[in-house]
Amino acid sequence: MSSGVSSQPRGEAAGITVKKSEDFSEWYTQVVLKAGLADYAPVKGFIVLRPYGYAIWESIRDILDRRFKETGHQNGFLPVLIPESLLSKEEDHFAGFTPEVFWVTKAGDNNIGEKLALRPTSETLAYSVFAKWITSYRDLPLKINFWNTALRAEIKATKPFIRTSEFLWQEGHTVHATEEEAEQEVMTILGIYKDMIENYLAVPVITGYKSDTEKFVGAKYTTTLEGLMADGKALQMGTSHHLAQNFSKPFEIKYLGKDTKEHFAWQTSWGVSWRLIGALIMVHGDDKGLVLPPQIAPIQVVIVPIHKDKDAKLVKDKAAEIELELKHAGIRAYMDSRDEYTSGWKFNEWEMKGVPLRINLGPRDIEKGQVEFVRRDTKDKKQDDRTKLVDTANSLLVEIQKNLLSKARAFLQENISRPASYDEFKSIIENKGGFVMVGWCGQEECEEKIKQDTGADIRVLPFDQKDRPGKCIYCGQDSKKAAIFARAY
Amino acid sequence: MSSGVSSQPRGEAAGITVKKSEDFSEWYTQVVLKAGLADYAPVKGFIVLRPYGYAIWESIRDILDRRFKETGHQNGFLPVLIPESLLSKEEDHFAGFTPEVFWVTKAGDNNIGEKLALRPTSETLAYSVFAKWITSYRDLPLKINFWNTALRAEIKATKPFIRTSEFLWQEGHTVHATEEEAEQEVMTILGIYKDMIENYLAVPVITGYKSDTEKFVGAKYTTTLEGLMADGKALQMGTSHHLAQNFSKPFEIKYLGKDTKEHFAWQTSWGVSWRLIGALIMVHGDDKGLVLPPQIAPIQVVIVPIHKDKDAKLVKDKAAEIELELKHAGIRAYMDSRDEYTSGWKFNEWEMKGVPLRINLGPRDIEKGQVEFVRRDTKDKKQDDRTKLVDTANSLLVEIQKNLLSKARAFLQENISRPASYDEFKSIIENKGGFVMVGWCGQEECEEKIKQDTGADIRVLPFDQKDRPGKCIYCGQDSKKAAIFARAY
Repeated sequence: MSSGVSSQPRGEAAGITVKKSEDFSEWYTQVVLKAGLADYAPVKGFIVLRPYGYAIWESIRDILDRRFKETGHQNGFLPVLIPESLLSKEEDHFAGFTPEVFWVTKAGDNNIGEKLALRPTSETLAYSVFAKWITSYRDLPLKINFWNTALRAEIKATKPFIRTSEFLWQEGHTVHATEEEAEQEVMTILGIYKDMIENYLAVPVITGYKSDTEKFVGAKYTTTLEGLMADGKALQMGTSHHLAQNFSKPFEIKYLGKDTKEHFAWQTSWGVSWRLIGALIMVHGDDKGLVLPPQIAPIQVVIVPIHKDKDAKLVKDKAAEIELELKHAGIRAYMDSRDEYTSGWKFNEWEMKGVPLRINLGPRDIEKGQVEFVRRDTKDKKQDDRTKLVDTANSLLVEIQKNLLSKARAFLQENISRPASYDEFKSIIENKGGFVMVGWCGQEECEEKIKQDTGADIRVLPFDQKDRPGKCIYCGQDSKKAAIFARAY
Repeated sequence: MSSGVSSQPRGEAAGITVKKSEDFSEWYTQVVLKAGLADYAPVKGFIVLRPYGYAIWESIRDILDRRFKETGHQNGFLPVLIPESLLSKEEDHFAGFTPEVFWVTKAGDNNIGEKLALRPTSETLAYSVFAKWITSYRDLPLKINFWNTALRAEIKATKPFIRTSEFLWQEGHTVHATEEEAEQEVMTILGIYKDMIENYLAVPVITGYKSDTEKFVGAKYTTTLEGLMADGKALQMGTSHHLAQNFSKPFEIKYLGKDTKEHFAWQTSWGVSWRLIGALIMVHGDDKGLVLPPQIAPIQVVIVPIHKDKDAKLVKDKAAEIELELKHAGIRAYMDSRDEYTSGWKFNEWEMKGVPLRINLGPRDIEKGQVEFVRRDTKDKKQDDRTKLVDTANSLLVEIQKNLLSKARAFLQENISRPASYDEFKSIIENKGGFVMVGWCGQEECEEKIKQDTGADIRVLPFDQKDRPGKCIYCGQDSKKAAIFARAY
């Protein structure tokens, strides 16, 4: 763990200089920096979000926040510091997090008696206060979400949105009277996540359970949504955990039931982070930069006025009318009226930033009463009547959203392999990557051996088990579960 | 600095048991806890926000966020950890904050090379990255806001929203090409704050400059909004600072001008925190609890169905219709349909929570085609035709908002004293409290002596200087400024 002021180069963002297919990792870093999403912070492992990156996070947050509230959740606030004694109250949980916890030991010049953890996750802190608030069945269910950051010291190289020592996320924590209610909550949240990720981010996922080795430390079970990135590696997009009574017992979250008896409560926790932005970049981006799905793009349509000096006023006025008309129709439109850049420069910049739809407006378009649209995803151009502006923009945005999802779905389907032997399994992991669907006997030993051999672990035991192979790919015994293995971020 | 699990009592919130006029401090604490705004966290000095308290913060945040965006600001994200070398780059700034900084010295079991500060404020971190982003006049102005928390170790007793070691706030940071533009920004923000505080929170303020002793460490000057609490103490509601080039020079924030020369940029920073919630409580609350101005109340109208078992369905159905009709009209309405509480219990609870308007709905109201409204601020009841529901609700909400502001304005006016002698000054501070408007020679020595004698400091040098007394209240020399002294939170 070291810190030191980073030294990124100054200067205008130029275009992306590597191909996505040739150096995926370098391509990713360039997109993040040059599209103005994020930058490195002075302390190694930490990043700063620039306004464009934060605006994407705001889109994601607003959509989820609305859904959480519609389903009876409310937001709260928890401090970032947790005393060591509290963090260690659930033993497995503490053992899981302690290697990566940042510790505060001083305030001003004074040493602090008991050292304080920077929140790696808030179960322990939340549940110590929930125990005070819950006394009766009348206080249940309690369903609170927190929009904050979590801190976990990363020793590997920083990868913005994917591997950072502090990340933006939301963590939901709920308390229920019965095990079944908690189970229902786990699935409700997983459904909200799936809808968000597939229908807004246009990233298809496979949902199911984590194996016991991979579940959240302290959970009875963990459900997950796994996405596949363009380089063939998996990315866990979100998780929703059934905590059973594993925390309510040490934290004494008890309620007096209608039966006038005391019961320990049942709990869930769940979260998604700014990793979702990392997924967006890796799944949809291309050699020119970011490609954003319209549903979450901070700017859905950019209007670039193209003119010589003599036409400047006319073209800008008409472009401003277009911007206003689109905005009134609820479309996030932006006119780039800057004089200090050429239109070619602007085209490159907005392509790099992944704006789904561009309108080029010149004097001839105005004469002809037409508007020219350029799609970011297919590069297709389309001229249409100025009078149909809003309808055409809306229908193109819908098409782009659909196209991005269906392209990503096709890629996912092509990259789910079903090897017949362990040798084939190893070869796929080594050469092709992607998701590998096999039978698994359910023994941790086989899971561990495969991981040691190949670097692939069980990403998910899919809910959909209808294609379960009969034998364990490693030991050949009867399989208990279909499992998807992959190398992962 | 010690930490330890707090031991708040369990059990249902009962009513407030002390009068606001008799024990203001205990009254405040009871309102915070019993209205369900906040609770103590496990670490001394820290609090947790419960959903009702966080919803008020969301109201404040959403209003400001919209105004910031309308005036060309965007949001970003900065990490919570700042290396010591960076925090100390502007000397006065560092000296001002260092006694209260929390320090991270360990990650897992490893000691960290250079210790890391938990953000007491983000000037240094923000400006180290701004320096990378700004190269040309084309990059200016840069206007970024951050919604996050700041951490400053408090050694005095915790007072929720007013004195806590971590607090929710926003910090805005802007960079401009000229001094005048920065000056204009300082005033634009102060105007947004004033509008928010007076017209939404219904808390009147006096605006002006801080003295050099009281200004932000590192600023050229600080502008402030000072409110007066019901116990006669002042509360600083927000500040907006002109940083001149005090940070741009050490952080090398330079831009190439249209003149092709390099210039150091001009900067501002500004912020408000959840103190605003503390002010709301102290200014408007009464012996029954919170009184919320409609503009920021999470629930503006609560509907309590009153019925025996036989009428339950009818009354609840009609109450639900009222809730829906109000919601469709954009009013934040909530029907309390819980069967496990009596209507008397509900009246008390919603009064304690400060909901501005209550509708009591019983079978006789339904028969008569009327609705009964009860105002939280005046306790007045009003019956009106069911058909006029939305209009009546809206006009009552407007009246309540106005009434709260005018009551608070009257209180403020009554509590601005203008003593003729220093003896009178001391007596006012000791006995009546409030704002004391006097002449000041401008010397720090007089300011300091008055503070030592009375505990009152200069809260604000008002923009409005038309009533400036001729002599300094302490030394009798010619006064340079009218100054408002007060004891403060």
